[in-house]
Amino acid sequence: MAKDKGSSFNLKTPKGTKDWSGSDALLRDRIFTTIANVFKRHGGTALDTPVFELREILAGKYGEDSKLIYDLKDQGGEICSLRYDLTVPFARWLAMNSDVRSIKRYHIAKVYRRDQPAINKGRMREFYQCDFDIAGTFDAMVPDAEILRIVSEVFEELGWNGRYTIKLNHRKILDGVFAVCGVPEDKLRPISSAVDKLDKMPWAEVRKEMVDQKGLDPEVADRIEKYVMNKGSRELLDSLLKDETLNANASAKAGLEEMALMMDYLEAFGVLDKISFDMSLARGLDYYTGVIYEVVTEGSAGVQADAPEAQKAEKSKKGKSKVSEDDDRSNDPTLGVGSVAAGGRYDNLVGMFLPKAQIPCVGISFGVDRIFSITKARIEREKKSDALRNSEVDAYVMAFGGKGFGGMLKERMEICQKLWSAGIKAEFSYKLKPKLPQQFKAAEQGAIPFGIILGEEELAAGKCRIKEMGLPEGHPEKEGVEVEITSLVSELQTRLAKKQQGAVSSLAAQLQGTSV
Amino acid sequence: MAKDKGSSFNLKTPKGTKDWSGSDALLRDRIFTTIANVFKRHGGTALDTPVFELREILAGKYGEDSKLIYDLKDQGGEICSLRYDLTVPFARWLAMNSDVRSIKRYHIAKVYRRDQPAINKGRMREFYQCDFDIAGTFDAMVPDAEILRIVSEVFEELGWNGRYTIKLNHRKILDGVFAVCGVPEDKLRPISSAVDKLDKMPWAEVRKEMVDQKGLDPEVADRIEKYVMNKGSRELLDSLLKDETLNANASAKAGLEEMALMMDYLEAFGVLDKISFDMSLARGLDYYTGVIYEVVTEGSAGVQADAPEAQKAEKSKKGKSKVSEDDDRSNDPTLGVGSVAAGGRYDNLVGMFLPKAQIPCVGISFGVDRIFSITKARIEREKKSDALRNSEVDAYVMAFGGKGFGGMLKERMEICQKLWSAGIKAEFSYKLKPKLPQQFKAAEQGAIPFGIILGEEELAAGKCRIKEMGLPEGHPEKEGVEVEITSLVSELQTRLAKKQQGAVSSLAAQLQGTSV
Repeated sequence: MAKDKGSSFNLKTPKGTKDWSGSDALLRDRIFTTIANVFKRHGGTALDTPVFELREILAGKYGEDSKLIYDLKDQGGEICSLRYDLTVPFARWLAMNSDVRSIKRYHIAKVYRRDQPAINKGRMREFYQCDFDIAGTFDAMVPDAEILRIVSEVFEELGWNGRYTIKLNHRKILDGVFAVCGVPEDKLRPISSAVDKLDKMPWAEVRKEMVDQKGLDPEVADRIEKYVMNKGSRELLDSLLKDETLNANASAKAGLEEMALMMDYLEAFGVLDKISFDMSLARGLDYYTGVIYEVVTEGSAGVQADAPEAQKAEKSKKGKSKVSEDDDRSNDPTLGVGSVAAGGRYDNLVGMFLPKAQIPCVGISFGVDRIFSITKARIEREKKSDALRNSEVDAYVMAFGGKGFGGMLKERMEICQKLWSAGIKAEFSYKLKPKLPQQFKAAEQGAIPFGIILGEEELAAGKCRIKEMGLPEGHPEKEGVEVEITSLVSELQTRLAKKQQGAVSSLAAQLQGTSV
Repeated sequence: MAKDKGSSFNLKTPKGTKDWSGSDALLRDRIFTTIANVFKRHGGTALDTPVFELREILAGKYGEDSKLIYDLKDQGGEICSLRYDLTVPFARWLAMNSDVRSIKRYHIAKVYRRDQPAINKGRMREFYQCDFDIAGTFDAMVPDAEILRIVSEVFEELGWNGRYTIKLNHRKILDGVFAVCGVPEDKLRPISSAVDKLDKMPWAEVRKEMVDQKGLDPEVADRIEKYVMNKGSRELLDSLLKDETLNANASAKAGLEEMALMMDYLEAFGVLDKISFDMSLARGLDYYTGVIYEVVTEGSAGVQADAPEAQKAEKSKKGKSKVSEDDDRSNDPTLGVGSVAAGGRYDNLVGMFLPKAQIPCVGISFGVDRIFSITKARIEREKKSDALRNSEVDAYVMAFGGKGFGGMLKERMEICQKLWSAGIKAEFSYKLKPKLPQQFKAAEQGAIPFGIILGEEELAAGKCRIKEMGLPEGHPEKEGVEVEITSLVSELQTRLAKKQQGAVSSLAAQLQGTSV
């Protein structure tokens, strides 16, 4: 026990990490539960992998961003690193369990990146991802479409009421476009990554980067512009399907046909109206092989954004949101700029571990820290902060007495025991002789809906009072209702059920942003 | 992309870690939910801290076990280590948030120890702890008693039906006993740690260690025996309260008086019958200052134990379970030998970080991996493995058709969409034209309770069939019930609600070990 160290400790969490407590922890927990419930509704099963992996498992998966991986110290034995995302551990698991030929798995866990933190923008070194992936050989685009249905269910249940767009593209279409425009093989990746910046810089700048920095023929750049500046839905796809030059390219043709199937299925799933077929979407990670997508919203850049302004910006720039420009999470390959979820199809990743275990996959990763910031900002904007409680206690058991009063500690304990045994969340003061105002204050601070008040005379008669907190003056039950202790549990349960009806809609309202 | 690496990867998880998937992950998740619900019922609020801490935060807290701490590599910047338990991060958080003068916090998360793994015994390098702690200055023993009430609620709700014992002791009593027996100041810790071994070796051996190895006067050892071999309840306490030698020692007197209060409160909370006042319980960690406790069960050593034998051993050895002797998790300071939960009062830990932030604490840590092993072994013993499903899907939407049949993929998608929108968990085959037996097989393998069968003619008439899976031959609904598609959701919900009634009791049965 190094008592001598005393106050010399550097009292902080490591750079880029933070503690989560109180109403923030509770709200984040509700977001996890909402997302996990959608995952389970689609047959998802949980997978939990170790927080660190053998270093060689992560090697060669993240390109330049490998420098952001946290390594464990060599203390003898294996060389390990903290996981950088949840996708590579999933692929490693699939390769190890090659008897599993199809699975829908979800994983909600922290990942680690030694990035320059920008806490105000929600970029942390330790942050949560919520991933859902479907592995298996299936008919084309069927699981891919279900992933986007899952996206829409998550955001609807988080109460975003359609205020988000799923940007959708296909790697094969993009590859075909670059090929027919005449991009040389060795410039494919750099040009693709330049195109991907179109959500935060205008075409003129992107073109400049292509021509001046990356040495692309200006005519090739101009041909690219005619394609990648397009956004739309089925009508855009229809016009591309009639583009003979493009369809002469095998990759583009295959991508366009898959996109047509995808749109059919998205329509059957009722999510086509959320989709923007965005030919500039390229996504950073190399391992995508098919459809790619990113979810953006007016509030994606987080709590700093003034939402109405951002909305205006969104409209005036035709989907180029102003807030995105403030955000430079460009070195995060999982989430695009300003995006709250992203993913795509990756058919070759598992084979990198074990060629004979090759299994095609498609998936989505939700960035919970951003979703949290946006949700919290909305709740605060709507002044529903009183709805953000630290805990969810139903009843506070208190003693009422004057001078010479014994505090009734054991009686309060016995009442609590009855309530707990019935599954009711209850607290009481840990003081032997607490004062009534202190007890009321504790109940009010915890926003606890009911007080159970014990008085010595009432108790002797086998009774106590249930008092609903916060009733207005003049309410007939303002002073509480006397009940038999034998029926306290059922009386309280009846009142809680009535209240819960309200609480459920209040929680829904909290997540959905509508007043109650 | 290091494609050239191919199959040269070492496909495994790091030593002492494992993946959790399928029914194991689901069962563990249910255990977490059960425990978290009890924590919330007692007003617990969630705290989440980073998985690594500044190394100096962990330094000097774990004595010899500090060698088991995982360090992160020095990649420039701060020097960090993976957390070793959840208690020290909680104390660090309290010191950092010195405006928080009282809190009930819970934390369910992984901790890391570079120990020699013994996977069969459930000793891993990465494992979960579920902690509940109460910080604040309160009247003596009130929160301490609530912690043990929480222990009993957790194990009752996990279905252990009283098959566990809470061993209870008090550091001040132990210190007083050692003082009046004449243990020299410098031998207090070594003698205390020898006494703590009485749950896995007989007194003769412990005495030998004290006298031969630790140089204790044999007469002192004999005086110690008269105290520490005692186990009991209130009658033991009453006899100690009459022991004038012991009560002449201030520490012992204070401890005994607190123990008397504790027993009063445990009686009010209805848990006194689960308690064994065990004077040999010492607990490894130095930071305990008051009551200490450990929960033991006949199955504590895990899945290897043949339960009936273990029970016999338990009885014949009066609480010294045979299985404990097979278990050498003696270097785990959080869990005692064979224990499934442990904790105590630690009033000085927060002050080690910041003396002015000093705040007394009392808490409990549940060892979920052992609880999991015991629960799973019981389920398997009782041949309820069919109850362990990988996912919780309610309905499998399938197409029925013969030659030339179109597969009805979009129709299946549309029906799924209706079900998902109503919150029903549903799956369908990702094949364009799946065969009926394949679809039935998928539903059966997933133990999915209902099939929704689409036929072309029925569909044209706006109808489909709900088929409850697994009905016996001859059951009137064996072939399913035809319903209007417009009322499919409500018809299915009615059936699911009826089924859920059964499922809830089945889940309860699964956790509680009773047949349905």
